[in-house]
Amino acid sequence: MNKHVNVQTFIGCESSFEESSTVLFGIPYDGTTSFRPGTRFAMQAIRTDSFGLESYSPYLDRDLEDVAIFDGGDLDLPFGNTERVLNDISEYTKAVLANDKKFLMVGGEHLVSLPTIQAAYEKYPELHVIHIDAHTDLREDYLGEKLSHASVIRRCHDFLGDNRIFQFGIRSGLKEEFEWAKEHTYMERFSIDTVKEIVQQLKDVPVYVTIDLDVLDPGVFPGTGTPEPGGITYKELLAGIAALQDLNQLVAADVVELSPPYDHTGASTAMACKTVREMLLTLTK
Amino acid sequence: MNKHVNVQTFIGCESSFEESSTVLFGIPYDGTTSFRPGTRFAMQAIRTDSFGLESYSPYLDRDLEDVAIFDGGDLDLPFGNTERVLNDISEYTKAVLANDKKFLMVGGEHLVSLPTIQAAYEKYPELHVIHIDAHTDLREDYLGEKLSHASVIRRCHDFLGDNRIFQFGIRSGLKEEFEWAKEHTYMERFSIDTVKEIVQQLKDVPVYVTIDLDVLDPGVFPGTGTPEPGGITYKELLAGIAALQDLNQLVAADVVELSPPYDHTGASTAMACKTVREMLLTLTK
Amino acid sequence: MNKHVNVQTFIGCESSFEESSTVLFGIPYDGTTSFRPGTRFAMQAIRTDSFGLESYSPYLDRDLEDVAIFDGGDLDLPFGNTERVLNDISEYTKAVLANDKKFLMVGGEHLVSLPTIQAAYEKYPELHVIHIDAHTDLREDYLGEKLSHASVIRRCHDFLGDNRIFQFGIRSGLKEEFEWAKEHTYMERFSIDTVKEIVQQLKDVPVYVTIDLDVLDPGVFPGTGTPEPGGITYKELLAGIAALQDLNQLVAADVVELSPPYDHTGASTAMACKTVREMLLTLTK
Amino acid sequence: MNKHVNVQTFIGCESSFEESSTVLFGIPYDGTTSFRPGTRFAMQAIRTDSFGLESYSPYLDRDLEDVAIFDGGDLDLPFGNTERVLNDISEYTKAVLANDKKFLMVGGEHLVSLPTIQAAYEKYPELHVIHIDAHTDLREDYLGEKLSHASVIRRCHDFLGDNRIFQFGIRSGLKEEFEWAKEHTYMERFSIDTVKEIVQQLKDVPVYVTIDLDVLDPGVFPGTGTPEPGGITYKELLAGIAALQDLNQLVAADVVELSPPYDHTGASTAMACKTVREMLLTLTK
Amino acid sequence: MNKHVNVQTFIGCESSFEESSTVLFGIPYDGTTSFRPGTRFAMQAIRTDSFGLESYSPYLDRDLEDVAIFDGGDLDLPFGNTERVLNDISEYTKAVLANDKKFLMVGGEHLVSLPTIQAAYEKYPELHVIHIDAHTDLREDYLGEKLSHASVIRRCHDFLGDNRIFQFGIRSGLKEEFEWAKEHTYMERFSIDTVKEIVQQLKDVPVYVTIDLDVLDPGVFPGTGTPEPGGITYKELLAGIAALQDLNQLVAADVVELSPPYDHTGASTAMACKTVREMLLTLTK
Amino acid sequence: MNKHVNVQTFIGCESSFEESSTVLFGIPYDGTTSFRPGTRFAMQAIRTDSFGLESYSPYLDRDLEDVAIFDGGDLDLPFGNTERVLNDISEYTKAVLANDKKFLMVGGEHLVSLPTIQAAYEKYPELHVIHIDAHTDLREDYLGEKLSHASVIRRCHDFLGDNRIFQFGIRSGLKEEFEWAKEHTYMERFSIDTVKEIVQQLKDVPVYVTIDLDVLDPGVFPGTGTPEPGGITYKELLAGIAALQDLNQLVAADVVELSPPYDHTGASTAMACKTVREMLLTLTK
Repeated sequence: MNKHVNVQTFIGCESSFEESSTVLFGIPYDGTTSFRPGTRFAMQAIRTDSFGLESYSPYLDRDLEDVAIFDGGDLDLPFGNTERVLNDISEYTKAVLANDKKFLMVGGEHLVSLPTIQAAYEKYPELHVIHIDAHTDLREDYLGEKLSHASVIRRCHDFLGDNRIFQFGIRSGLKEEFEWAKEHTYMERFSIDTVKEIVQQLKDVPVYVTIDLDVLDPGVFPGTGTPEPGGITYKELLAGIAALQDLNQLVAADVVELSPPYDHTGASTAMACKTVREMLLTLTK
Repeated sequence: MNKHVNVQTFIGCESSFEESSTVLFGIPYDGTTSFRPGTRFAMQAIRTDSFGLESYSPYLDRDLEDVAIFDGGDLDLPFGNTERVLNDISEYTKAVLANDKKFLMVGGEHLVSLPTIQAAYEKYPELHVIHIDAHTDLREDYLGEKLSHASVIRRCHDFLGDNRIFQFGIRSGLKEEFEWAKEHTYMERFSIDTVKEIVQQLKDVPVYVTIDLDVLDPGVFPGTGTPEPGGITYKELLAGIAALQDLNQLVAADVVELSPPYDHTGASTAMACKTVREMLLTLTK
Repeated sequence: MNKHVNVQTFIGCESSFEESSTVLFGIPYDGTTSFRPGTRFAMQAIRTDSFGLESYSPYLDRDLEDVAIFDGGDLDLPFGNTERVLNDISEYTKAVLANDKKFLMVGGEHLVSLPTIQAAYEKYPELHVIHIDAHTDLREDYLGEKLSHASVIRRCHDFLGDNRIFQFGIRSGLKEEFEWAKEHTYMERFSIDTVKEIVQQLKDVPVYVTIDLDVLDPGVFPGTGTPEPGGITYKELLAGIAALQDLNQLVAADVVELSPPYDHTGASTAMACKTVREMLLTLTK
Repeated sequence: MNKHVNVQTFIGCESSFEESSTVLFGIPYDGTTSFRPGTRFAMQAIRTDSFGLESYSPYLDRDLEDVAIFDGGDLDLPFGNTERVLNDISEYTKAVLANDKKFLMVGGEHLVSLPTIQAAYEKYPELHVIHIDAHTDLREDYLGEKLSHASVIRRCHDFLGDNRIFQFGIRSGLKEEFEWAKEHTYMERFSIDTVKEIVQQLKDVPVYVTIDLDVLDPGVFPGTGTPEPGGITYKELLAGIAALQDLNQLVAADVVELSPPYDHTGASTAMACKTVREMLLTLTK
Repeated sequence: MNKHVNVQTFIGCESSFEESSTVLFGIPYDGTTSFRPGTRFAMQAIRTDSFGLESYSPYLDRDLEDVAIFDGGDLDLPFGNTERVLNDISEYTKAVLANDKKFLMVGGEHLVSLPTIQAAYEKYPELHVIHIDAHTDLREDYLGEKLSHASVIRRCHDFLGDNRIFQFGIRSGLKEEFEWAKEHTYMERFSIDTVKEIVQQLKDVPVYVTIDLDVLDPGVFPGTGTPEPGGITYKELLAGIAALQDLNQLVAADVVELSPPYDHTGASTAMACKTVREMLLTLTK
Repeated sequence: MNKHVNVQTFIGCESSFEESSTVLFGIPYDGTTSFRPGTRFAMQAIRTDSFGLESYSPYLDRDLEDVAIFDGGDLDLPFGNTERVLNDISEYTKAVLANDKKFLMVGGEHLVSLPTIQAAYEKYPELHVIHIDAHTDLREDYLGEKLSHASVIRRCHDFLGDNRIFQFGIRSGLKEEFEWAKEHTYMERFSIDTVKEIVQQLKDVPVYVTIDLDVLDPGVFPGTGTPEPGGITYKELLAGIAALQDLNQLVAADVVELSPPYDHTGASTAMACKTVREMLLTLTK
């Protein structure tokens, strides 16, 4: 008879903090979402539905059972005070990095990538960012707010500077964002076919990968806050992740913007689960 | 051929600002919601589905076509900065009151009632509040935040003081909130049967009515952020509204916490629509 | 091995036309529905989900297995030509009555009751109608159309005249409809408590019962085209049906306005199924 | 920084097995469900959504934080082999009882109550059962299978015998089940008003309470496998649970038949959560 | 403080009738739909959800803010009288054309394209039609009705004659419709790859483009009345629209058959919104 | 007037058993499903929604109206006793084959293919199996049960032996299943492009085709029990079916794992309907 209080982790992530090389954690925050909120429930849904997934990946021929990952649960955050939330995330992420562990963060809205990317940058000043998304996320501000999901990559540029940000799949934004990008970031519009060649270029520098799942076409992935038609298929995303295997210094990653209240069938959550598995196996390679 | 740009109002609310005695407006904000967000879409859904409703109320034997109401649309608000949002609402509400009009505000989460009640209080220092809700909303703070949907009535007490707040239908809260209420508010738990007698007591003082629709049982009204079983039926709410007819100084009201993303069938939105109609007819009596 | 082509009937209604005393049939038409269409799918859903119901009623202590009912399927109707549709229904109904059988028709929108009531009236000139509904259905016309779901009872009055129509549960309509009703029909507003006493009055005359399921509160019965809050509970409807047992000349009945596309959980369809069972047992008493 | 692998329990049930007086556990099994499966996901959904509930009950004026309850998670069961499943449940339950703990089991379909009631009976030979349900569950067999959700109470009678089973809320079954019940069980049909007086009668004997949530009307509780219209309201169920406070030897209980796939809005799950809280507070009184 | 009655238009379409070159309007009619109704709600849903879209198109590098479009709202139509409905549409469309404006009509079911195409034909006798659809729509009649969604292109052929209709994406119909098409229309089956070359051919003649959104695969676009598997992706539709840029006399267009009641996630509506934006930018080029 | 008890068949399958060359039947069983149950409702939903489909296939240029198919309905099966269920299916299938008819079986979960493949093997000892699926289904057992949906192809191998099983589209399983397959089956992973060449190889031997619809990407086909992202599109499945036309001895087939409770929009059911039509036309070639 099992006498332990009920534990729930992502499938195959039952290692202790100490023995693990990689930490998985969730950030249940969607406080600046401008259209449809709900990404706060993402990690919870992903943990539950990961039961429908195998721990073995035939794509990478690796198994979560063979690597040591710690599932640290979700951060406990208040709503309505964005600055305090970002501070709490920052502190947690720095503690993970201070223990020389990699991490996979699961959002939440895209703004929560700001403190995790910044923490990674502080530890790895040569950090480069691979950004897979439907949206530019390059606004200077959104309705006057500088800390917004629509500005997150612009805020990262504030400290990273030029030639450090590589954007893929982008198909929505203001005209000025697309103009701005021409001078400050690498951008592939509408598809993610050039991930492979950029990876070759970034092979030996520290890299953070941030995947906004709305890069997928909403026809196949409706469970997100800002559905933007014309996106990639899940097979294309899998190919993009496969291309990441050549990175020698992938230090951290995140998967954001699954919104379970808009995923009535569970298919979007299943895609998020598989993305998390593939990214964990990529991080622990 | 109609050559006017498309106008959409709540049924029967097509008067101009100037000719109207009462203003209807929406506040699409749910930034401090702790459980299920989505109330930001309430007023939009209510406007659209009011088409399924008649403008005539057989309960009150009055018709929206016979009174002058202005539908001012929804406030345009940012997310992620609660204080700025509350300021914007405050300013708008004060402008309405400065024109000697009554108003019906439609939330949004319950926190948005704080600036509207405060604005009413500033104009009517003798203001009393009738609060119909499942939750006490009397917390000193929520995870450290003093401006939270779970604290809104406590914040109102900060300026209203004792003997001004009358709570009905309450069935959820911390033990200390129920204890606190014993000394500072009138509270009917589980039902709203005493609205009638309290109305007689408040007949001749200025009154603000705030209706959190989650007072309804989630079995009949699932479209809300924090479903709390054991609530009242819609007929009981209609009886409560009928009892309000004896108030001689009803100055303003609000209807909050409809969450359309959780109302797949439209039945909850239909109840919100009918509540808005009955409250508008009560305000314009 | 069963070698018969697949037959699907309402539970317990497998008798042949010849051996049956009562005919059950569906009218998949919702062509004049002004708000949310979908009632065309009602009878199909009711047949399928009747599998979740027992054939025995503990309320009436009778079993569908003990009576002879023929399920004639659904009429095959075009859309877009209301007059032709009404003619087709009329013809079918008259053929049923010509064979001296009772019938239970399942809509469809409420307008489809017009030809079935008229056919019953032609066979039974003393016909009285018990009308259970949320809506008056007494408009002279709707946007200029005289043949509309919103006018069906008014159209029946055209041939039945005064003192023949008894309305229950009504809570929505134009002011003029309520005024008109005062002189031409019996009307109980908001509830159906007086069915019992009216049944005593109509005990020995031919009676047709038309049940618009939107008389139920949309909180408990969302699967309908025009949800009108403030309705009765399903237990109250069951009590109303129980009261019908004293009618000695119940000649026909209908159950209309279930809209499966708005019944995501199947609960509304379950209520329609049980109503059909109870009405079939009442007709075959 | 929290370094524990992610733990998820029902709200307020974080005690260790050793320190707890009561054990909460889930049985994710619905293998004999004849209509709509899905109850296997109940306990998982209840744990997740218990976050929307307070740990304090204003009905009982007690708080889960003040009692010691262990959440043992869900049993790990195969599908397709009913006997093996029942054995596994039996073994687990006996282990709990052997440690002199009470328990609350959450199903799963109703058949899973058979081994838990039997285990309780083996420890307490004077066991009486309070059975709250829409269905008789008294079939001798279902399509030839004696181990079926439709036979569970009959199977309990096999060992309990007459005068030990008290049924409430029953409104569906075969005619022969209702007949059989007249001689072998106490049965209140359609409502649960007599729970109070039966509790007085059973005050001082060991009692097991089994609550099939489909006793609730499907209008207010659609999230179940066999929706049966005409049920009780949630307030009536709360009153029934309140009546149980006078039992001096309540030794175990279960709450079964929540089916999350049919609960699109979460309202049914919220009712199940609140029922679990009230029953846990009743058991630990 | 805004004192205008609430205006709601498609994003970026706030010009007055007089200053606009193009008119956007909705036709909320689905009265001849034979399978799943609901397209009447399309334009309303599109207006509301266009908020989630940017006004700038990176595909066409043009912005709705830079062109003058008038959103004339939805026509007010009765149900149940198809001829009257078609007359009303005809009249409205002619008034738009009489003012020398282009238009984009949003259905409704496909039959509503008949009067708008006919009106365009009357003004431009050389009119050619590009028809993108899953269905042939070439029936002589449907269950005896000549005015049916399944006959709309055949009815257009009645006045346009041979060599004027170009069909793409067709994958469903009667055998005789496919046979008939061989002699009277151009038809690409299963895909829309040849739009580009046909556009070159039609470069300098007046063209009307009618897009039935069910050309998209229902896997990615479920929100429609007659889902027909095997359709194109949204990227393919975008490529088709891009090909239209070479038309020098695009005089009008329509987008039909979005059915919001079957679009639970909003993804289909998002595709409709983007299609409307791209077509508006194409019309106003 | 139609006096026949209501018959419901898949569109165009109204022939008698005697006159038909092919039998269509459903197996409403999902008793060993480990994740999300519900496939028991598949055939029922397919029959109902086949009304939205044409009987003519423009892909194959053949029409169901021109061939003789008998729809035998669904088998009547108990739940909870897997062995008895498999026996009942076996018996029925053998009776069909004994009459020298082909068949198309519609599941249910994949385990129900075991008795139908075995029955076909007993009649055609040279039987080869084309298996289109997302999952390997090659486990020796699942949680100790040898009769499980996850083991069905392994159980077939028990009697078929090596070189008889051809798997396509596989993308999920245990590492050992993929290893095992290397020696015992033909397997194309992730896609089904080689169906064409394998068909050439199997041209003149008896072939059984089993299609697990979860081979489709869950983005486009969410209505299934175990959604596995990264699957094929519906167009790719249609191409695979087209390739089967060259089989000269296709003796039987099945289509399994549609789960209507997870197909809220009907799009998955529409795909299943079209697959059934194409397979029926392939079988009756």
